[in-house]
Amino acid sequence: MAHIQLNDENLPGIIGLMHYSPKTAKPLNELAEVLLVDDNSLTRGERELIASSVSYWNDCHFCHTSHGAAAAALLNQPVSLIADIKNGLQQTAVSDKMRALLAIARQVQKGGKHVTPEHIEKAKAEGASDKEIHDTVLIAAAFCMYNRYVDGLATWAPDTDEAFMPMGEMLAEKGYNAVTPVEAE
Amino acid sequence: MAHIQLNDENLPGIIGLMHYSPKTAKPLNELAEVLLVDDNSLTRGERELIASSVSYWNDCHFCHTSHGAAAAALLNQPVSLIADIKNGLQQTAVSDKMRALLAIARQVQKGGKHVTPEHIEKAKAEGASDKEIHDTVLIAAAFCMYNRYVDGLATWAPDTDEAFMPMGEMLAEKGYNAVTPVEAE
Repeated sequence: MAHIQLNDENLPGIIGLMHYSPKTAKPLNELAEVLLVDDNSLTRGERELIASSVSYWNDCHFCHTSHGAAAAALLNQPVSLIADIKNGLQQTAVSDKMRALLAIARQVQKGGKHVTPEHIEKAKAEGASDKEIHDTVLIAAAFCMYNRYVDGLATWAPDTDEAFMPMGEMLAEKGYNAVTPVEAE
Repeated sequence: MAHIQLNDENLPGIIGLMHYSPKTAKPLNELAEVLLVDDNSLTRGERELIASSVSYWNDCHFCHTSHGAAAAALLNQPVSLIADIKNGLQQTAVSDKMRALLAIARQVQKGGKHVTPEHIEKAKAEGASDKEIHDTVLIAAAFCMYNRYVDGLATWAPDTDEAFMPMGEMLAEKGYNAVTPVEAE
């Protein structure tokens, strides 16, 4: 059971929190929409891989699995992609640039000052632009927020990876603003 | 020097990043406005104390000091409040409820799962409402994002606490949406 009394205890993870607090849901979803859905030289699937990886490193089952499911939907991958994200994407084709960006995200998850000039140089050497580095840092930072929001209030989540696939497909199709409760307007 | 080429290197901390990326600045400031400025049973000064404390625990000089300066402006305290935040508010009058909420924020900073039912019970016993607990968790989580954004891209910040006081007064007077660059609209 969550640490606070939600309006609807059947809604999992951040969904239940967004219905509890629509006023904060609105900017939280707008941020996710800009970072994960809007036009970008990183594909939507690549950005969801960053989001899901950071969430795994933060031990947030709900965010790791829902964004892993979104990545699977966007990259036309089976549900096993979610397990491969836990294993550092050993089975999944990922560019060297993305590996370097994921290494930056790993440092951001630990703390902002863990990112060194060497991590940045490596990403630039693999072709990452300043904007891609900026967006990677902010996606990783944002999931350090979403993950703490979801787990800091002890929300529930489905157990199996398969149970998250419809949510991943919905996020892939409709994006994040679609998740904002109507009361927020 | 920052890890990426900003439009204006004279702008410190998150201000330079927001001018680099106005599209993300907009929801970032809207979130801060709802959490730190909108009507709430926690005073604006109390909420800035949470923001500044979390930023100190995350070792983010820019956010710790700017939000400490905002707290000083809102609570009619001298610049020495900023140093007292580092010391756990030993010299500052803070309610037992606020101490219990700050203890929750301390756990959120470490990671969402560090918040236990005992932390929540303690805050409720001191009179904290569910919404106050929700808002404390989300403020703490949000600063785990802002802090990593600011330091993950290696932005600069003024050295002295005194240099932050005009920024604190501006935030106290105008809030956060006023910081969003015009290009975001």
